[in-house]
Amino acid sequence: GMDEAPPPASPAGLSAYVAVSQMLGLTLLVTTGAWLGRYRGGVAWHSPLQFNVHPLCMVLGMVFLQGDALLVYRVFRHEAKRSTKALHALLHGLALVIALLLPTGIVAVFESHRAKGIPDMYSLHSWCGMATFVLYLLQWLLGCGFFLFPGASFSLRSRYKPHHIFFGISLFILSIAACLLGITEMLLFKISDSYSHFVPEGILANTLGVLLVAFGLVVGYVLTRDDWKRPPLAEELALSMDFKTLTEGESPGDGSQ
Amino acid sequence: GMDEAPPPASPAGLSAYVAVSQMLGLTLLVTTGAWLGRYRGGVAWHSPLQFNVHPLCMVLGMVFLQGDALLVYRVFRHEAKRSTKALHALLHGLALVIALLLPTGIVAVFESHRAKGIPDMYSLHSWCGMATFVLYLLQWLLGCGFFLFPGASFSLRSRYKPHHIFFGISLFILSIAACLLGITEMLLFKISDSYSHFVPEGILANTLGVLLVAFGLVVGYVLTRDDWKRPPLAEELALSMDFKTLTEGESPGDGSQ
Repeated sequence: GMDEAPPPASPAGLSAYVAVSQMLGLTLLVTTGAWLGRYRGGVAWHSPLQFNVHPLCMVLGMVFLQGDALLVYRVFRHEAKRSTKALHALLHGLALVIALLLPTGIVAVFESHRAKGIPDMYSLHSWCGMATFVLYLLQWLLGCGFFLFPGASFSLRSRYKPHHIFFGISLFILSIAACLLGITEMLLFKISDSYSHFVPEGILANTLGVLLVAFGLVVGYVLTRDDWKRPPLAEELALSMDFKTLTEGESPGDGSQ
Repeated sequence: GMDEAPPPASPAGLSAYVAVSQMLGLTLLVTTGAWLGRYRGGVAWHSPLQFNVHPLCMVLGMVFLQGDALLVYRVFRHEAKRSTKALHALLHGLALVIALLLPTGIVAVFESHRAKGIPDMYSLHSWCGMATFVLYLLQWLLGCGFFLFPGASFSLRSRYKPHHIFFGISLFILSIAACLLGITEMLLFKISDSYSHFVPEGILANTLGVLLVAFGLVVGYVLTRDDWKRPPLAEELALSMDFKTLTEGESPGDGSQ
């Protein structure tokens, strides 16, 4: 009978995984800061240290904030969808601004290359990173257009949503891959002679790479676990029922629903 | 009414995506071969060219074959689960053998390092690659233990399965990330002076990186699309119903099921 059915699965463990992800995220920032501060002379805008702004902004924006933006639907699972959606868009927007518009992230590399006469966009890191950033911006614009502005129909939103989710997770993974490539490039540019002797800077930067992978795995696990998905609120269910009823041409009271 | 419900979604487009994935997979092999053959002097076992065996085996085993092993449940969707499972295990096993046991892949690097007096396992590529390979071997052993040998109970299998899937896709992504790191390392070791001048070898190897990402995206899309998941056969459904009935303590004829 109905009364023997188990209650809807409660997300036991979800909070623990989210807490681990946040500790990993902070550890990423500290490790990046430690690498740049201890071995690369620190971070500054108008100086030879300008380049160092780049790794810090990418780890903060394209990894930590992007990851947190993906997690909001799991963390704020019982809030109204409207507010959660706004927070999702806001965090992604902040990540984009940190990655590009503040005189930081990507701009830092081009400025620093210009100052030193190094060509742009020749490496695999730059190809992957730039493609990821441009597609991330596009995904954000499409997301706002489909889900935040009232123009798009329920049916259009439903059809776009799985693609938005697939590309969202893909871009998060690609961002991490681009960071790993950037770490390898930086080490081979700066300490190519000593890297193979297991110098502390090499170990620290490799560890940063491993932590980036760990952050991606924990966030990915939280996102893909079926029983941790955000349950629709009662009023959302009612809405989607009404929609189904309308499109399938049945009356709301039809017993077969 | 029941008769107005749409028929189970047929996987329109699935074959096209699988075909694209296979063309991309073959293009990966050709591009890797072209890079090694045209710019790196080709491939040979007992010679200074020994190292070149490594990229070829990794792209073939850890990317192409691993990807195809993940796709078998989508491609052979109407075959008996038993045969599909055996093929899945076989392709992963073949990937493992190509990556390690034949005198190729990973062994090639250690032999080549030994010959040239280069230390092992200092780079981020080696850390990520080795971790991926060891976890991949472990995942294969666990998969065989849980799903191929008759010892594990239905309940144990059901609980392990989502983790097997999550780590399977994660290891596939990590394999591709390790390849991207390997490409960047090899270019910065071999053509560090000319890489920034957009020499053909750099462009070709970067393109290989982009193709690896594209292969990962297409395989990932096929794997994660809900309506392309393998539908359970009638007899599998019956089995899982019996199991549910047993564990929930209801009789098979209970109308509420």
